[in-house]
Amino acid sequence: MRRSVLKFGGSSVSDFHKIKNIAEMLKRRVADGQQLIVVVSAMGKTTDELMANVNHLTTAPKEQELALLLTTGEQQTVSYLSMVLNDIGVKAKAMTGYQAGIKTVGHHLKSRIANIKPELFERSFQTNDVLVVAGFQGINDDDEITTLGRGGSDTTAVALAASNQIPCEIYTDVEGVYSTDPRIYKGAKRLEYVSFEEMMEMSALGAGVLETRSVEIAKNYNIPIYLGRTLSNKKGTWIMTRSELLEKKAVTGVALDKNMLHITVSHPLPDNHLLTALFNKLDKGSVNVDMISQIINIEGLQMSFTIKDSDLGQINGILDSLCQEFKALDYKINEEYVKISLIGSGMRDISGVASKAFITLIENDIPFYQTTTSEISISCVIDAEHGDEAVARLSEAFNI
Amino acid sequence: MRRSVLKFGGSSVSDFHKIKNIAEMLKRRVADGQQLIVVVSAMGKTTDELMANVNHLTTAPKEQELALLLTTGEQQTVSYLSMVLNDIGVKAKAMTGYQAGIKTVGHHLKSRIANIKPELFERSFQTNDVLVVAGFQGINDDDEITTLGRGGSDTTAVALAASNQIPCEIYTDVEGVYSTDPRIYKGAKRLEYVSFEEMMEMSALGAGVLETRSVEIAKNYNIPIYLGRTLSNKKGTWIMTRSELLEKKAVTGVALDKNMLHITVSHPLPDNHLLTALFNKLDKGSVNVDMISQIINIEGLQMSFTIKDSDLGQINGILDSLCQEFKALDYKINEEYVKISLIGSGMRDISGVASKAFITLIENDIPFYQTTTSEISISCVIDAEHGDEAVARLSEAFNI
Repeated sequence: MRRSVLKFGGSSVSDFHKIKNIAEMLKRRVADGQQLIVVVSAMGKTTDELMANVNHLTTAPKEQELALLLTTGEQQTVSYLSMVLNDIGVKAKAMTGYQAGIKTVGHHLKSRIANIKPELFERSFQTNDVLVVAGFQGINDDDEITTLGRGGSDTTAVALAASNQIPCEIYTDVEGVYSTDPRIYKGAKRLEYVSFEEMMEMSALGAGVLETRSVEIAKNYNIPIYLGRTLSNKKGTWIMTRSELLEKKAVTGVALDKNMLHITVSHPLPDNHLLTALFNKLDKGSVNVDMISQIINIEGLQMSFTIKDSDLGQINGILDSLCQEFKALDYKINEEYVKISLIGSGMRDISGVASKAFITLIENDIPFYQTTTSEISISCVIDAEHGDEAVARLSEAFNI
Repeated sequence: MRRSVLKFGGSSVSDFHKIKNIAEMLKRRVADGQQLIVVVSAMGKTTDELMANVNHLTTAPKEQELALLLTTGEQQTVSYLSMVLNDIGVKAKAMTGYQAGIKTVGHHLKSRIANIKPELFERSFQTNDVLVVAGFQGINDDDEITTLGRGGSDTTAVALAASNQIPCEIYTDVEGVYSTDPRIYKGAKRLEYVSFEEMMEMSALGAGVLETRSVEIAKNYNIPIYLGRTLSNKKGTWIMTRSELLEKKAVTGVALDKNMLHITVSHPLPDNHLLTALFNKLDKGSVNVDMISQIINIEGLQMSFTIKDSDLGQINGILDSLCQEFKALDYKINEEYVKISLIGSGMRDISGVASKAFITLIENDIPFYQTTTSEISISCVIDAEHGDEAVARLSEAFNI
């Protein structure tokens, strides 16, 4: 029996008409002899609506209660989809995260999947052809409901694919992976294949199609991911191991991350306790730090780093409390920066990518303030106002 | 530490303002040195809204999926209430039915509570003063979410009180238990005490304040129930064992049940297989039968019984399939009848209640079509149009 995991995001299940169409598509797949695990998110704006309700009640909801509340969104979607499937003659069963045995560890709202028992699915497939699983959620060792944080439903899908050793198809409202955002640069091309590594850089760097974590899991378990538009006949993009990719271009894509904050911390003395305290607090608050640059010179300590803009509330609290401990501390949060990145599997083989990128930015009068590199990417922090132009100029320069 | 179970129904938590007021009330109780288990229903019309969504998708939702969907309503309420409690400094924890260890057996939508582990509450009370538990729901041995059916949140509350051996307070939108419905008969009096037995008859007979099942559990475990209006200072009604009640009136209350269907089944031959088949189907469909009268005479078999009007869809299906098996079967479903009942602990000691009731009905030109009696009640099926008048005339006749 051929099996796959299929995942449909919130915008793909935003109304009952769409849910019915997805059910019909799944029915055809089952008629074709397949058994499916289908992961769905909360319908459309459900999560936002629940959050709006919370804001009527408290400004600081307890994380445990918030997770319990938000997970009702997916629980409703799986119920609806499974009802429709059964109604049209497909044997289907709806499962919440904990019913699917998704055990998590960590913060209630940013949990990580610890393990999944594939036996449970094996058993359920004996009497069902489609298992509809709530994305984004799990249960921890204290039997408390948790959520997986940003992009959590993708993580659920890929983790289920990994534990069952079957491929994963992720359906969303984009056609696949593009060399860069087509809304920013019209010349962007859809990629037929990308490597896990390239995709990870693209996600981490804000291409916004698929979260890094899920690609990481797929890479570790060597689970190919297909990324395509919901109910579209157009081809999407396969994400797979680099060794299976024939052509390795120096630069495959350009990504622009607008959802970031740039923080600069300075202190007149080179005090390492300060850095330890800062990173301790960031870790406790589950704030993910991206680019880090640190300098110690005669003016003392200076450090810049970037985080997601959704962590603004957290970082304000952290820096305030740090100022209590370190009186001479000075900091600046800049919301007007964006990060532009070049990604390519072939980059490690090809010299000159960095210099070509810098030259392109300089020739176009685009100043850059911080640079980091990985094996297959180069990222620069630039002014938000130059973001779109930088995407276009770099896409041209690298012919992507 | 004094502990109690408090239950708030859907209309008591229908908006965020009400939830906040309840939280403040609970805070005062905790400040007074109490620890509380608080059972809540879904907010206001949530369940109806979810059902309306289902109707967009299918006319015959699978029960398992429907239970999974409907339980999100209470899960949201417990999250909200617990958030507010924590926000105002009360240590509270929200729990779904399965997190509270409420194990059920039976149909997904009409499950019964099999057991509850009080140890779990003991442990949670070590770090919390209020445990907010989702009413109406549990989990079965296959780890499937179930609902307890009509009045399920009351059952949850009383069962939690019973397993923890603590009193139960049920808050609703009525002032307590009345001798009859004050909306029908202005002379109705609020009762300070009623016995479990009287309350069971009143519930079963449609007084609509508290479902029979919950009173039955309270009686079996001898858990006193207080019934009062949410956030009201007026005294409500205590429901307790008959032996503790001093005054035993012949008739304590008059109840009118409008939510019933009267079914008459007839067959030219006195075929007992027919009755066996019928009751088998009723049982499988979880249709509760109330009043039953059966006659076998020269015209064959004739039987009348009443069921809840919410089972109309079920009964139609059952009778149709029965007609396939028994071709000569004839049936009639009458929706224009209501049931009026007199209830009183003292009734078994006092003769003449029945005859006085019949005379009252006859003198007022109110025909009655079927009569049943229990140890502490007499019920008659009458025309719906005479319901209100019958309540008034019988209340006067028995001076209640």
